[in-house]
Amino acid sequence: MTVTTTTTPSALAWSTDNCQVARALDVFGDRSSLVVIREVFNGVRRFDDMQRHSGVNRQVLSNRLAHLVDEGILRKVPYQPEGSRVRHEYRLTQKGLDLYPVLTALAEWGARYVADPEGPAVEMAHRDCGAEVHAVLVCDEGHRLDDVRDVVPRPGPGGRRL
Amino acid sequence: MTVTTTTTPSALAWSTDNCQVARALDVFGDRSSLVVIREVFNGVRRFDDMQRHSGVNRQVLSNRLAHLVDEGILRKVPYQPEGSRVRHEYRLTQKGLDLYPVLTALAEWGARYVADPEGPAVEMAHRDCGAEVHAVLVCDEGHRLDDVRDVVPRPGPGGRRL
Repeated sequence: MTVTTTTTPSALAWSTDNCQVARALDVFGDRSSLVVIREVFNGVRRFDDMQRHSGVNRQVLSNRLAHLVDEGILRKVPYQPEGSRVRHEYRLTQKGLDLYPVLTALAEWGARYVADPEGPAVEMAHRDCGAEVHAVLVCDEGHRLDDVRDVVPRPGPGGRRL
Repeated sequence: MTVTTTTTPSALAWSTDNCQVARALDVFGDRSSLVVIREVFNGVRRFDDMQRHSGVNRQVLSNRLAHLVDEGILRKVPYQPEGSRVRHEYRLTQKGLDLYPVLTALAEWGARYVADPEGPAVEMAHRDCGAEVHAVLVCDEGHRLDDVRDVVPRPGPGGRRL
Protein backbone atom coordinates (compact mmCIF):
# COMPACT_ATOMS: atom_id res chain seq x y z
CA MET A 1 0.00 0.00 0.00
CA THR A 2 1.31 3.42 -0.97
CA VAL A 3 0.20 6.32 1.22
CA THR A 4 -0.68 9.48 -0.66
CA THR A 5 -1.51 11.89 2.19
CA THR A 6 0.54 15.06 2.33
CA THR A 7 -0.56 16.44 5.69
CA THR A 8 2.13 18.44 7.42
CA PRO A 9 2.75 17.06 10.92
CA SER A 10 1.91 19.69 13.54
CA ALA A 11 5.11 18.90 15.41
CA LEU A 12 7.00 20.77 12.69
CA ALA A 13 5.57 24.02 14.07
CA TRP A 14 7.21 23.44 17.46
CA SER A 15 10.80 23.80 18.57
CA THR A 16 12.70 20.91 20.11
CA ASP A 17 15.42 23.24 21.44
CA ASN A 18 14.17 23.09 25.03
CA CYS A 19 12.92 19.48 24.96
CA GLN A 20 13.30 18.16 28.50
CA VAL A 21 13.74 14.57 27.25
CA ALA A 22 16.86 15.56 25.32
CA ARG A 23 18.10 17.54 28.32
CA ALA A 24 17.52 14.60 30.64
CA LEU A 25 19.57 12.41 28.33
CA ASP A 26 22.32 15.01 28.25
CA VAL A 27 22.53 14.72 32.05
CA PHE A 28 22.76 10.95 32.42
CA GLY A 29 22.22 9.39 28.98
CA ASP A 30 25.77 8.47 28.08
CA ARG A 31 26.74 4.83 28.38
CA SER A 32 29.18 5.15 31.28
CA SER A 33 26.92 7.40 33.38
CA LEU A 34 24.18 4.81 33.04
CA VAL A 35 26.53 2.04 34.05
CA VAL A 36 27.46 4.00 37.19
CA ILE A 37 23.78 4.65 37.95
CA ARG A 38 23.03 0.95 37.54
CA GLU A 39 25.79 0.04 40.00
CA VAL A 40 24.49 2.45 42.64
CA PHE A 41 20.89 1.30 42.16
CA ASN A 42 22.14 -2.25 42.67
CA GLY A 43 23.74 -1.23 45.96
CA VAL A 44 27.33 -1.08 44.69
CA ARG A 45 28.41 2.23 46.19
CA ARG A 46 32.16 2.19 46.56
CA PHE A 47 34.68 3.11 43.93
CA ASP A 48 36.73 -0.10 44.03
CA ASP A 49 33.66 -2.34 44.04
CA MET A 50 32.15 -0.39 41.16
CA GLN A 51 35.35 -0.49 39.18
CA ARG A 52 35.73 -4.24 39.61
CA HIS A 53 32.07 -5.02 38.99
CA SER A 54 31.48 -2.77 36.00
CA GLY A 55 34.90 -2.97 34.36
CA VAL A 56 34.76 0.76 33.62
CA ASN A 57 38.22 2.34 33.39
CA ARG A 58 39.21 4.13 36.66
CA GLN A 59 39.61 7.55 35.09
CA VAL A 60 36.25 7.37 33.29
CA LEU A 61 34.57 6.08 36.44
CA SER A 62 36.04 8.90 38.49
CA ASN A 63 34.87 11.50 35.93
CA ARG A 64 31.36 10.05 35.71
CA LEU A 65 30.99 9.93 39.51
CA ALA A 66 32.08 13.57 39.80
CA HIS A 67 29.68 14.52 37.00
CA LEU A 68 26.72 12.75 38.62
CA VAL A 69 27.54 14.38 41.97
CA ASP A 70 27.68 17.79 40.24
CA GLU A 71 24.31 17.08 38.63
CA GLY A 72 22.81 16.22 42.01
CA ILE A 73 22.00 12.62 41.09
CA LEU A 74 24.53 11.11 43.50
CA ARG A 75 25.85 12.36 46.82
CA LYS A 76 29.07 11.42 48.56
CA VAL A 77 28.90 9.92 52.03
CA PRO A 78 32.14 9.43 53.99
CA TYR A 79 33.03 6.02 55.43
CA GLN A 80 36.10 4.69 57.14
CA PRO A 81 37.33 1.16 56.59
CA GLU A 82 39.04 -0.20 59.70
CA GLY A 83 42.71 0.85 59.81
CA SER A 84 42.36 3.02 56.75
CA ARG A 85 41.75 6.66 55.85
CA VAL A 86 38.25 8.09 55.33
CA ARG A 87 36.80 7.33 51.90
CA HIS A 88 33.52 8.12 50.21
CA GLU A 89 30.68 6.05 48.96
CA TYR A 90 28.02 7.17 46.55
CA ARG A 91 24.31 7.23 47.28
CA LEU A 92 21.35 8.28 45.18
CA THR A 93 19.76 11.63 45.98
CA GLN A 94 16.00 12.06 45.53
CA LYS A 95 16.76 13.27 41.99
CA GLY A 96 18.65 10.04 41.41
CA LEU A 97 16.02 7.82 43.03
CA ASP A 98 13.44 9.46 40.79
CA LEU A 99 15.11 7.67 37.88
CA TYR A 100 13.43 4.44 39.07
CA PRO A 101 10.47 4.76 36.69
CA VAL A 102 12.88 5.32 33.77
CA LEU A 103 14.98 2.29 34.72
CA THR A 104 11.91 0.15 35.36
CA ALA A 105 10.45 1.03 31.96
CA LEU A 106 13.81 0.34 30.30
CA ALA A 107 14.15 -3.00 32.12
CA GLU A 108 10.67 -4.03 30.95
CA TRP A 109 11.25 -3.09 27.34
CA GLY A 110 14.58 -4.88 27.51
CA ALA A 111 12.98 -7.96 29.09
CA ARG A 112 10.48 -8.14 26.23
CA TYR A 113 12.84 -7.57 23.34
CA VAL A 114 16.52 -8.12 24.11
CA ALA A 115 16.81 -10.49 27.09
CA ASP A 116 18.30 -13.97 26.98
CA PRO A 117 15.88 -16.88 26.37
CA GLU A 118 16.01 -17.74 30.11
CA GLY A 119 14.59 -14.31 30.88
CA PRO A 120 15.78 -10.89 32.01
CA ALA A 121 18.98 -10.53 34.02
CA VAL A 122 17.34 -8.05 36.38
CA GLU A 123 13.83 -7.21 37.54
CA MET A 124 12.30 -4.68 39.90
CA ALA A 125 10.49 -5.85 43.01
CA HIS A 126 8.19 -4.27 45.58
CA ARG A 127 10.20 -4.10 48.79
CA ASP A 128 7.13 -4.78 50.97
CA CYS A 129 5.45 -7.71 49.22
CA GLY A 130 8.15 -9.01 46.86
CA ALA A 131 5.94 -8.87 43.76
CA GLU A 132 7.45 -7.70 40.48
CA VAL A 133 7.09 -3.99 39.71
CA HIS A 134 6.04 -2.55 36.33
CA ALA A 135 5.94 0.94 34.87
CA VAL A 136 2.35 1.47 33.70
CA LEU A 137 0.77 4.48 32.03
CA VAL A 138 -2.06 6.20 33.89
CA CYS A 139 -3.73 9.51 33.06
CA ASP A 140 -4.85 12.24 35.46
CA GLU A 141 -8.46 11.08 34.99
CA GLY A 142 -7.44 7.74 36.46
CA HIS A 143 -7.57 5.73 33.23
CA ARG A 144 -4.96 3.05 32.81
CA LEU A 145 -3.59 3.02 29.25
CA ASP A 146 -2.89 -0.60 28.41
CA ASP A 147 -2.50 0.16 24.72
CA VAL A 148 0.41 2.49 24.01
CA ARG A 149 -1.48 3.74 20.93
CA ASP A 150 -3.70 5.64 23.37
CA VAL A 151 -0.79 7.93 24.27
CA VAL A 152 -0.13 11.06 22.23
CA PRO A 153 2.69 13.59 22.78
CA ARG A 154 1.74 17.28 22.71
CA PRO A 155 3.47 20.59 23.44
CA GLY A 156 3.63 21.31 27.19
CA PRO A 157 3.44 24.72 28.93
CA GLY A 158 7.06 25.39 27.98
CA GLY A 159 6.53 24.50 24.31
CA ARG A 160 7.87 27.10 21.85
CA ARG A 161 6.42 27.76 18.41
CA LEU A 162 8.95 27.98 15.61
CA MET B 1 28.31 11.20 59.79
CA THR B 2 30.87 8.60 58.77
CA VAL B 3 29.47 5.20 57.88
CA THR B 4 31.51 2.25 59.17
CA THR B 5 29.58 -0.71 57.73
CA THR B 6 31.57 -3.08 55.55
CA THR B 7 28.77 -5.26 54.17
CA THR B 8 29.51 -6.56 50.69
CA PRO B 9 26.66 -5.64 48.32
CA SER B 10 25.01 -8.81 47.00
CA ALA B 11 24.99 -7.36 43.48
CA LEU B 12 28.72 -8.05 43.32
CA ALA B 13 27.91 -11.77 43.09
CA TRP B 14 25.92 -11.25 39.88
CA SER B 15 27.07 -10.62 36.35
CA THR B 16 25.97 -7.56 34.40
CA ASP B 17 27.10 -9.11 31.10
CA ASN B 18 23.58 -9.94 29.97
CA CYS B 19 21.82 -6.95 31.56
CA GLN B 20 18.82 -6.16 29.37
CA VAL B 21 18.90 -2.48 30.35
CA ALA B 22 22.38 -2.09 28.89
CA ARG B 23 21.33 -4.05 25.80
CA ALA B 24 18.25 -1.86 25.34
CA LEU B 25 20.45 1.22 25.48
CA ASP B 26 22.81 -0.32 22.95
CA VAL B 27 19.86 -0.59 20.55
CA PHE B 28 18.48 2.95 20.78
CA GLY B 29 20.38 4.78 23.52
CA ASP B 30 22.67 6.94 21.41
CA ARG B 31 21.81 10.59 21.06
CA SER B 32 20.93 10.60 17.36
CA SER B 33 18.79 7.43 17.50
CA LEU B 34 16.78 9.01 20.28
CA VAL B 35 16.34 12.20 18.28
CA VAL B 36 15.01 10.15 15.37
CA ILE B 37 12.67 8.24 17.70
CA ARG B 38 11.41 11.52 19.12
CA GLU B 39 10.64 12.85 15.64
CA VAL B 40 8.67 9.75 14.69
CA PHE B 41 6.75 9.74 18.00
CA ASN B 42 5.89 13.37 17.29
CA GLY B 43 4.47 12.40 13.90
CA VAL B 44 7.43 13.62 11.83
CA ARG B 45 7.90 10.63 9.54
CA ARG B 46 9.56 11.82 6.37
CA PHE B 47 13.26 12.19 5.81
CA ASP B 48 13.25 15.82 4.67
CA ASP B 49 10.89 16.92 7.46
CA MET B 50 12.98 15.11 10.04
CA GLN B 51 16.19 16.54 8.72
CA ARG B 52 14.88 20.09 8.77
CA HIS B 53 13.17 19.75 12.15
CA SER B 54 15.91 17.93 14.03
CA GLY B 55 18.94 19.48 12.36
CA VAL B 56 20.65 16.07 12.30
CA ASN B 57 23.16 15.74 9.48
CA ARG B 58 21.70 13.87 6.45
CA GLN B 59 24.24 11.06 6.51
CA VAL B 60 23.82 10.47 10.25
CA LEU B 61 20.03 10.60 9.90
CA SER B 62 20.11 8.11 7.05
CA ASN B 63 22.32 5.74 9.08
CA ARG B 64 20.16 6.00 12.18
CA LEU B 65 16.95 5.36 10.24
CA ALA B 66 18.49 2.28 8.62
CA HIS B 67 19.70 1.08 12.02
CA LEU B 68 16.28 1.52 13.65
CA VAL B 69 14.61 -0.31 10.75
CA ASP B 70 17.15 -3.15 11.13
CA GLU B 71 16.39 -3.30 14.85
CA GLY B 72 12.68 -3.52 14.13
CA ILE B 73 11.81 -0.28 15.92
CA LEU B 74 10.77 1.53 12.74
CA ARG B 75 9.27 0.26 9.51
CA LYS B 76 9.31 1.88 6.08
CA VAL B 77 6.01 2.66 4.38
CA PRO B 78 6.03 3.85 0.75
CA TYR B 79 4.28 7.08 -0.24
CA GLN B 80 4.14 9.02 -3.46
CA PRO B 81 4.09 12.82 -3.53
CA GLU B 82 2.11 14.09 -6.53
CA GLY B 83 4.31 14.26 -9.63
CA SER B 84 7.24 12.65 -7.84
CA ARG B 85 8.78 9.18 -7.45
CA VAL B 86 7.80 6.81 -4.61
CA ARG B 87 9.47 7.63 -1.33
CA HIS B 88 9.32 6.12 2.16
CA GLU B 89 8.14 7.36 5.45
CA TYR B 90 8.97 5.83 8.80
CA ARG B 91 6.45 4.48 11.28
CA LEU B 92 6.86 2.91 14.69
CA THR B 93 6.46 -0.87 14.91
CA GLN B 94 4.95 -2.41 18.06
CA LYS B 95 8.52 -2.71 19.38
CA GLY B 96 8.95 1.01 18.78
CA LEU B 97 5.57 1.97 20.23
CA ASP B 98 6.49 -0.02 23.33
CA LEU B 99 9.08 2.66 24.05
CA TYR B 100 6.22 4.93 25.19
CA PRO B 101 6.60 4.07 28.87
CA VAL B 102 10.35 4.79 28.65
CA LEU B 103 9.76 8.14 26.93
CA THR B 104 6.94 9.04 29.31
CA ALA B 105 9.12 8.31 32.34
CA LEU B 106 11.98 10.32 30.81
CA ALA B 107 9.67 13.24 30.00
CA GLU B 108 8.40 13.28 33.59
CA TRP B 109 11.84 13.18 35.15
CA GLY B 110 12.91 15.90 32.74
CA ALA B 111 9.83 18.00 33.55
CA ARG B 112 10.69 17.83 37.23
CA TYR B 113 14.40 18.52 37.01
CA VAL B 114 15.57 20.09 33.77
CA ALA B 115 12.63 21.90 32.15
CA ASP B 116 12.41 25.66 31.62
CA PRO B 117 10.67 27.69 34.35
CA GLU B 118 7.53 27.92 32.15
CA GLY B 119 7.26 24.15 32.24
CA PRO B 120 8.10 21.15 30.08
CA ALA B 121 8.35 21.51 26.29
CA VAL B 122 6.43 18.26 25.78
CA GLU B 123 3.92 16.17 27.69
CA MET B 124 2.07 12.94 27.08
CA ALA B 125 -1.72 12.94 26.82
CA HIS B 126 -4.46 10.31 26.84
CA ARG B 127 -5.87 10.27 23.31
CA ASP B 128 -9.43 9.58 24.53
CA CYS B 129 -9.86 12.05 27.38
CA GLY B 130 -7.00 14.51 26.87
CA ALA B 131 -5.69 14.18 30.44
CA GLU B 132 -1.94 14.11 31.02
CA VAL B 133 -0.34 10.66 31.17
CA HIS B 134 2.21 9.53 33.76
CA ALA B 135 4.40 6.47 34.15
CA VAL B 136 3.59 5.02 37.57
CA LEU B 137 5.02 2.00 39.32
CA VAL B 138 2.61 -0.83 40.15
CA CYS B 139 3.43 -4.32 41.43
CA ASP B 140 1.83 -7.62 40.43
CA GLU B 141 -0.09 -7.62 43.72
CA GLY B 142 -1.78 -4.41 42.59
CA HIS B 143 0.05 -2.04 44.95
CA ARG B 144 0.91 1.37 43.58
CA LEU B 145 4.41 2.42 44.64
CA ASP B 146 4.29 6.16 45.21
CA ASP B 147 7.65 6.17 46.99
CA VAL B 148 10.51 5.05 44.74
CA ARG B 149 12.30 3.77 47.84
CA ASP B 150 9.82 0.89 47.83
CA VAL B 151 11.39 -0.47 44.62
CA VAL B 152 14.33 -2.83 44.80
CA PRO B 153 16.20 -4.38 41.86
CA ARG B 154 16.93 -8.12 42.04
CA PRO B 155 18.33 -10.76 39.71
CA GLY B 156 15.73 -12.01 37.22
CA PRO B 157 15.33 -15.53 35.77
CA GLY B 158 18.23 -14.84 33.38
CA GLY B 159 20.53 -13.59 36.15
CA ARG B 160 24.01 -15.20 36.15
CA ARG B 161 26.16 -15.70 39.22
CA LEU B 162 29.77 -14.64 38.90
